[in-house]
Amino acid sequence: MKQHLTYLVILLMILSGSLSVAQTVKEDFKPTSTNQPGKDYPMVNSEGRVRTSIVAPDADTVLLDISAVKYNLTKDENGVWTGESGPQDEGFHYYQIWVDGAAVPDPNSLYYYGAMRWGSGIEVPAHDQEFYELKNVPHGQTREIYFPSKSTNTSRRAFVYTPPDYEKNLDKRYPVLYLQHGYGENEYGWPNQGKANLIMDNLIAEGKAKPFIIVMTYGMTNDVKVGGLRNFSIKPFQTVLIDELIPYIDANFRTLPDQPDRAMAGLSMGGFETKLITLSNLDTFSSIGLFSGGSISLDDVNNTPGFKDKVKLVFVSYGGREIENMKNRPRSGPFGGDPKEGIEAISKEGINAHFYVSPKTAHEWQSWRRSLHEFAQLLFKN
Amino acid sequence: MKQHLTYLVILLMILSGSLSVAQTVKEDFKPTSTNQPGKDYPMVNSEGRVRTSIVAPDADTVLLDISAVKYNLTKDENGVWTGESGPQDEGFHYYQIWVDGAAVPDPNSLYYYGAMRWGSGIEVPAHDQEFYELKNVPHGQTREIYFPSKSTNTSRRAFVYTPPDYEKNLDKRYPVLYLQHGYGENEYGWPNQGKANLIMDNLIAEGKAKPFIIVMTYGMTNDVKVGGLRNFSIKPFQTVLIDELIPYIDANFRTLPDQPDRAMAGLSMGGFETKLITLSNLDTFSSIGLFSGGSISLDDVNNTPGFKDKVKLVFVSYGGREIENMKNRPRSGPFGGDPKEGIEAISKEGINAHFYVSPKTAHEWQSWRRSLHEFAQLLFKN
Repeated sequence: MKQHLTYLVILLMILSGSLSVAQTVKEDFKPTSTNQPGKDYPMVNSEGRVRTSIVAPDADTVLLDISAVKYNLTKDENGVWTGESGPQDEGFHYYQIWVDGAAVPDPNSLYYYGAMRWGSGIEVPAHDQEFYELKNVPHGQTREIYFPSKSTNTSRRAFVYTPPDYEKNLDKRYPVLYLQHGYGENEYGWPNQGKANLIMDNLIAEGKAKPFIIVMTYGMTNDVKVGGLRNFSIKPFQTVLIDELIPYIDANFRTLPDQPDRAMAGLSMGGFETKLITLSNLDTFSSIGLFSGGSISLDDVNNTPGFKDKVKLVFVSYGGREIENMKNRPRSGPFGGDPKEGIEAISKEGINAHFYVSPKTAHEWQSWRRSLHEFAQLLFKN
Repeated sequence: MKQHLTYLVILLMILSGSLSVAQTVKEDFKPTSTNQPGKDYPMVNSEGRVRTSIVAPDADTVLLDISAVKYNLTKDENGVWTGESGPQDEGFHYYQIWVDGAAVPDPNSLYYYGAMRWGSGIEVPAHDQEFYELKNVPHGQTREIYFPSKSTNTSRRAFVYTPPDYEKNLDKRYPVLYLQHGYGENEYGWPNQGKANLIMDNLIAEGKAKPFIIVMTYGMTNDVKVGGLRNFSIKPFQTVLIDELIPYIDANFRTLPDQPDRAMAGLSMGGFETKLITLSNLDTFSSIGLFSGGSISLDDVNNTPGFKDKVKLVFVSYGGREIENMKNRPRSGPFGGDPKEGIEAISKEGINAHFYVSPKTAHEWQSWRRSLHEFAQLLFKN
């Protein structure tokens, strides 16, 4: 009993941050796949710690800022600052460097759009990373296109993934998935840090996914005006997507331009958009994927005319750490409630609904890569 | 006479740098097209000065480093550093910021690969910029592909521009231009800062260029080992291009897979590569473009068996400031001699050869955008 109490006190001290645990850092750091060509730093070790290094001879303070924590770097006699973070989850993370109060990208890393800026990103090796590795298999193409948009009076960018056999079988037509990024991100998210193309190339090579086209465009999520997300209107993006992009894709790619062969999915706020758009356009979409972005409840099904007849697939996923947070703080999460309960309830009603949890990851890209990997294997198969 | 002498003395003083001209900076700065979304800085004024701004409250010295000159920024009471450069040429320039001795990208700019790193780039508005603007015309696609390379044991990236009607006329086949970046750059150069896709979309919309495919891959220019460029061997890249990439493109795109419909061009070291590869592969290429990268002399023609029969087009170009430098320092430039003389000499021998000078630009992207714009109008037309 006394021993249990001791454990409990130590646990509470750790949780409350009052216990400083001496940390030995494992010295097996290696350069990462997201380094600029020829750069030794940043590095990651087997614990998932990120070590970065920057030349700043006249600086007084240099910090590494990753996953909302800032770590002090230390200076050597040559003016080179080096230091490392605590262990990070497997997968991709945004980060930055602070030099005497200036928040700047790490000059040694590749750059990604997220958190409302182009800046540094880092890849922490994952035990399952082979599913998104560049392998010697047939590769599809990721195409940058510009489509005309009358509603916004612009030519708008989209990225279109076409599967490996698209240029070989000129008579074949393909289903299409419209795939959305999250808040603070843009259309580069899925093709860059999301690795959507490599996930698909590998699944198709293994015969695990039906070849389909993926269309990724900017979901206008960052155009939120003062007043915050409460005032976000889905209408501008819905108009671009339904009235402009989909007709353009169907006219310029060899699609199967019908409801059974059209899906929409998105992560976080892109999931929120997906739910809003699909439920009011069930003659356009038959499959729905929400990655860390809400769920579909029995109420949703009952309040949406034709849901049971028209929807072929519902897929809802979260990172394991997100689920833990929901359990600890019920209904305090961004979307409230238990998403799994909703999926179980609509499954009982005969909906083809799936729930997936990404092990040991949070609201981050590794959860969403795994979600696409699971979702793609279910899509367009019935 | 006395007045003339005074002018002459002042002119000599200005040229020799001994006269410090008080500079009034025109206050008509505007955000640039290469800013990150939503960022007011950097800005450029009508003189081509670049003004940048960065928050760095604890820094002692912040510099703007552009076109090999460093400019001091000054700090305001909020810790914001701001300042501007001297006038820059029209077009695109790489730059960076120094914060207390750390060379970092400007957190407000978009990032480009050049000078051997991903870092800041800025667009100075040009009087002729409409030829590479995003307009409401039919757009081609820029496709990221991976092709298998046995010689390097990798899947290698290339970008492939397909013209606007490529997906409409599925029976049509197209000529192909292989287009190379310079030293310190990579395969992202032409599709990003080079704006090859927009230049072609606009030319095709005006009926000024024949629609063709452009293939852009990494020319392995930065893999030079100790010993410098003298030890550069063209063989590894020639093997990738001739034995691996061209067969892949001909098998996976609707090309006209023959010598009359295949061209190669490159800028700077990419021009050097183009000359080496085309002259020893005249059964593969019929058209040659060298942008700020050497010339074709009468000796080259006479020493290359079959040149007169096989070569349909030679195009050589330079920035006007490069030509000025060559005149001031004859034979001291990277390529020696007068490139125009060579073109005039081979023209007299009946070669279809063109020489172009980009007005008031140096060894920089504006020269090369204009060069592509001129070259494309001549290609595949006879």
